[in-house]
Amino acid sequence: MHSVHFTAQTSANGVVERDFVVGEVPGVLWSPASGSDHAPLVLMGHGGGLHKKTPALVARAHDTVTTWGFTVVAIDAPGHGDRPRTAQDEQARAGLRQAMTAGDGERVASISAGYGAALAQRAVPEWQATLDALQQLPEIGTEAPIGYGGGISLGTAIGIPLTAVEPRITAAIFGGGFVVDQALIEAARRITVPVQFLLPWDDEHVDRQSALALFDAFASPEKTLHANPGDHRTIRWFGVDNEFLARQLRRADAGASAA
Amino acid sequence: MHSVHFTAQTSANGVVERDFVVGEVPGVLWSPASGSDHAPLVLMGHGGGLHKKTPALVARAHDTVTTWGFTVVAIDAPGHGDRPRTAQDEQARAGLRQAMTAGDGERVASISAGYGAALAQRAVPEWQATLDALQQLPEIGTEAPIGYGGGISLGTAIGIPLTAVEPRITAAIFGGGFVVDQALIEAARRITVPVQFLLPWDDEHVDRQSALALFDAFASPEKTLHANPGDHRTIRWFGVDNEFLARQLRRADAGASAA
Repeated sequence: MHSVHFTAQTSANGVVERDFVVGEVPGVLWSPASGSDHAPLVLMGHGGGLHKKTPALVARAHDTVTTWGFTVVAIDAPGHGDRPRTAQDEQARAGLRQAMTAGDGERVASISAGYGAALAQRAVPEWQATLDALQQLPEIGTEAPIGYGGGISLGTAIGIPLTAVEPRITAAIFGGGFVVDQALIEAARRITVPVQFLLPWDDEHVDRQSALALFDAFASPEKTLHANPGDHRTIRWFGVDNEFLARQLRRADAGASAA
Repeated sequence: MHSVHFTAQTSANGVVERDFVVGEVPGVLWSPASGSDHAPLVLMGHGGGLHKKTPALVARAHDTVTTWGFTVVAIDAPGHGDRPRTAQDEQARAGLRQAMTAGDGERVASISAGYGAALAQRAVPEWQATLDALQQLPEIGTEAPIGYGGGISLGTAIGIPLTAVEPRITAAIFGGGFVVDQALIEAARRITVPVQFLLPWDDEHVDRQSALALFDAFASPEKTLHANPGDHRTIRWFGVDNEFLARQLRRADAGASAA
């Protein structure tokens, strides 16, 4: 089993940011400067073509740390951020660029779906190894409740198959904004933990019905769909239940303490 | 113009409940016992076959009064509650009973849609006359911001055409749980105020796509869809933004004061 190797540490506004590697996967851990013993751990995924320190992700991570006192972790998806690209990565990226330039929406969708599924297959064991390593840290341990904090698009394409096979994740935020294939629908059918699903209502490049079918597929007795106008780049989320993960993970925490 | 004639008054848990009639329409006004000068006014609609003092509606009204200090008004829909039934009401009710007994879902849907539209046509001018009369009361006046507080099913079938023609309503909660016809879609297209739309995800008797088309039709730049599992009788709302109307009506209030 790999351990967490910390490579850098900074601190700002009450949040400690620690870069790390687990095996060959680079990640970042944000935690409260005041300490975080067994605080809930939130996994965050980045969007396609982005990386673990994308400004929007960092802002959400800081907010989660300072508002709830939780710990947040993000890792670079395969072929993203600080990671080397394989021939498959280069081919998919070149194909996507060509299809976009040509305005070939169907080809964009087909490459996106195939590449997303391939990335998920590589990313799921990486997330699991990262969790194994993080749980060896005394401030996290095996007691910290774990939630998937989403990210729409690639963050969800990876998060759904991960949550489907990973019993340590007890609540998850997913979202639309990407191409949904049948494998993802089938993974969603295996998910029973509480789910919050965020749907950009006007995503030009994505079939709305497929996103609704994905929400429909979750086996979770407790699931909520929130839709707001806009596509996944321009959407402004309002009226969304921002306390979803906090409520779920604190509930998990209370359950563990009582057990 | 009709005035408000109060016919009874009771008080419990900090909430004053006053029965009234405006012309031939009976209604009920809930307000804070501590006073409510120009407090926001929330209009609540009841479901099909129900009435203005249905327990769930009374509970929501009390909650709105005690949590936000707002005033709430409900009136009986035509042919409902304390109101006489016309030949049209009796015919529709008998037809619905027969179709339900026969398990003829298509006929239930067709009668529901036609009767709902007819009720809305009668109810819209009644709501407008009620508003005219309430605005003559010194504690309400023309300064109180006005919101439509929903009620899924019949409450929305009436609330959408009302909000489409009534500029005094500055925010609205609507919902699914009933049969949507084309006239309602067209009314929704004329609505531009902020809308919160509550959708029971598993309503056996209602086509989900038609409810999604209704949400799609609102011209409001600010609109949010919330969906939870369950049909419109069994649904348990969680993760819904309960502060939607409070935020919108206070914003309207601040705007009016600033003007």
